[in-house]
Amino acid sequence: MDLATVPAKPHDRLASALSGDMAAVNAMIRERMASEHAPRIPEVTAHLVEAGGKRLRPMLTLAAARLCGYGGPYHVHLAATVEFIHTATLLHDDVVDDSKQRRGRPTANLLWDNTSSVLVGDYLFARSFQLMVETGSLRVLDILANASATIAEGEVLQLTAARNLATTEDTYLRVVRGKTAALFSAATEVGGIIAGAPEAQVRALHAYGDALGIAFQIVDDLLDYGGTEAIGKSRGDDFREGKLTLPVIRALARADADERAFWARAIGKGRVEDGDLERAQAILARHGALESTRQSALDWAATARRSLGALPDHALRDMLSDLADYVVERIS
Amino acid sequence: MDLATVPAKPHDRLASALSGDMAAVNAMIRERMASEHAPRIPEVTAHLVEAGGKRLRPMLTLAAARLCGYGGPYHVHLAATVEFIHTATLLHDDVVDDSKQRRGRPTANLLWDNTSSVLVGDYLFARSFQLMVETGSLRVLDILANASATIAEGEVLQLTAARNLATTEDTYLRVVRGKTAALFSAATEVGGIIAGAPEAQVRALHAYGDALGIAFQIVDDLLDYGGTEAIGKSRGDDFREGKLTLPVIRALARADADERAFWARAIGKGRVEDGDLERAQAILARHGALESTRQSALDWAATARRSLGALPDHALRDMLSDLADYVVERIS
Repeated sequence: MDLATVPAKPHDRLASALSGDMAAVNAMIRERMASEHAPRIPEVTAHLVEAGGKRLRPMLTLAAARLCGYGGPYHVHLAATVEFIHTATLLHDDVVDDSKQRRGRPTANLLWDNTSSVLVGDYLFARSFQLMVETGSLRVLDILANASATIAEGEVLQLTAARNLATTEDTYLRVVRGKTAALFSAATEVGGIIAGAPEAQVRALHAYGDALGIAFQIVDDLLDYGGTEAIGKSRGDDFREGKLTLPVIRALARADADERAFWARAIGKGRVEDGDLERAQAILARHGALESTRQSALDWAATARRSLGALPDHALRDMLSDLADYVVERIS
Repeated sequence: MDLATVPAKPHDRLASALSGDMAAVNAMIRERMASEHAPRIPEVTAHLVEAGGKRLRPMLTLAAARLCGYGGPYHVHLAATVEFIHTATLLHDDVVDDSKQRRGRPTANLLWDNTSSVLVGDYLFARSFQLMVETGSLRVLDILANASATIAEGEVLQLTAARNLATTEDTYLRVVRGKTAALFSAATEVGGIIAGAPEAQVRALHAYGDALGIAFQIVDDLLDYGGTEAIGKSRGDDFREGKLTLPVIRALARADADERAFWARAIGKGRVEDGDLERAQAILARHGALESTRQSALDWAATARRSLGALPDHALRDMLSDLADYVVERIS
């Protein structure tokens, strides 16, 4: 096969189509993460921001604005805003999870300390807030304020739902929206708003980001129990941390007494023994919980693709559609 | 003396004059700290919010709005906003400082865990953001976004300046603005903005809050080395934590070789021995550093009072003036 004809991944095609805008976003991120007086801030931020994240969220904003015909400057502010919010939540997450690695590198809380991660995260939230105020759009501010509250509430909910075997699919979905989908849907929606898109298109952009984020997170949670390896985390992390993810919730609903005792010990009490991850995988497979979770991810990806129907015919729209396929490709 | 004629403290007189508004603020705080899905959030928040803090910041906003003649509803949103921002920073501060006590009660990070304090702090920031968006004033949003950035930058600066004997008074002032004065000045300024006050009054309100906050913080830093006892912290805390506060910066400027070696060991390296706090106090007294710091606090309080000259003649203005005297009363 001729290498030149290998189709690039949708993410790379988006990056290529938006390369001029992304250069402006990266320049704005570098400029705004600076602090004349506290050099610790750009040090910590650069460690994370320049570690080669995929910049998926800012690309969603740029793509949404461009495919709705935007020609002004503020999609760049909003793309930098969502990347700052994302980076701030990563800094706080790593403190909360006591993580040692992120994107293949030691975490900021390990290289510096938890204190720096908490405070630099706060600084990036404040900077993101300044950036969005500069757009002058109260509606954009409203959407991002609500997304921020959903994100923080989802994180607390995840914390208090851990090791709780009574966790429902409804709570799981709420956690997933907080962890991932709320920022995805805000990222796409504000792109449409700043472009002055009609309401139907704004709603479609929100629905796309929401479904894409949910599909993305379900895939991540599924890969914790196998298939190919998960990216950026070790298999079994969620299991050992007692997270009630979709496969486990579904297997619990069909558990016999023995299995229930197993989940209560390993997830509920966190007493994990050798061979437990393999036993968990076997139970999940026996009840079809892996397969049904896989199907849910595919359904959400299909919902994301369908939402795009209300948007203008545009090369970027096709790339967003392909992106929805791509996030579930690892489990297809 | 007849008890009924004892003049109430200015803080209590403000609370009394603003009691209707404060009841509305307290109701809004209770309503907005709720989370249907994550009960941990109101638990942690209530622990701190209902611990009997003085509600000084929301009262500043209410007083500013009222003395500028405001009759609308949004001063209540803004007062709740500044209290939420303050509470969020307290939650994060207690994690950063590894504090065990706050307002005479165990801290949230001790009662629950650091994780809850970080995430509930983030939630309260997001809630404060929603509240201010509801006012519909981009200028208010701009001021509070800038204050948030100054607060976070000041916290990081304090962290990196700790144990650094080269810290200047300029850096100290920047830390103090971040810790205290940025939220005080934003609190008074947004009260004027929402009331539609003329520019000269808005500037005066900002200047008052800024100077009041600086005076307040200098007094707190001075009391760490004696006089009467500091409120809410133990004498010598700053010394043991290696904070470069104004008395130490001024004593360092006049230190002989022996004294410099002492500060380098105790503050620079954090090797504090028995009797060191007393020795530090003696050195500070010898160079007049306590007296000159005291004078600086009085000067800032005078600046605060003078700023009020541009504001309308009003009973609340007189109470704000008395409040400026009151914050330095502990050292007068």
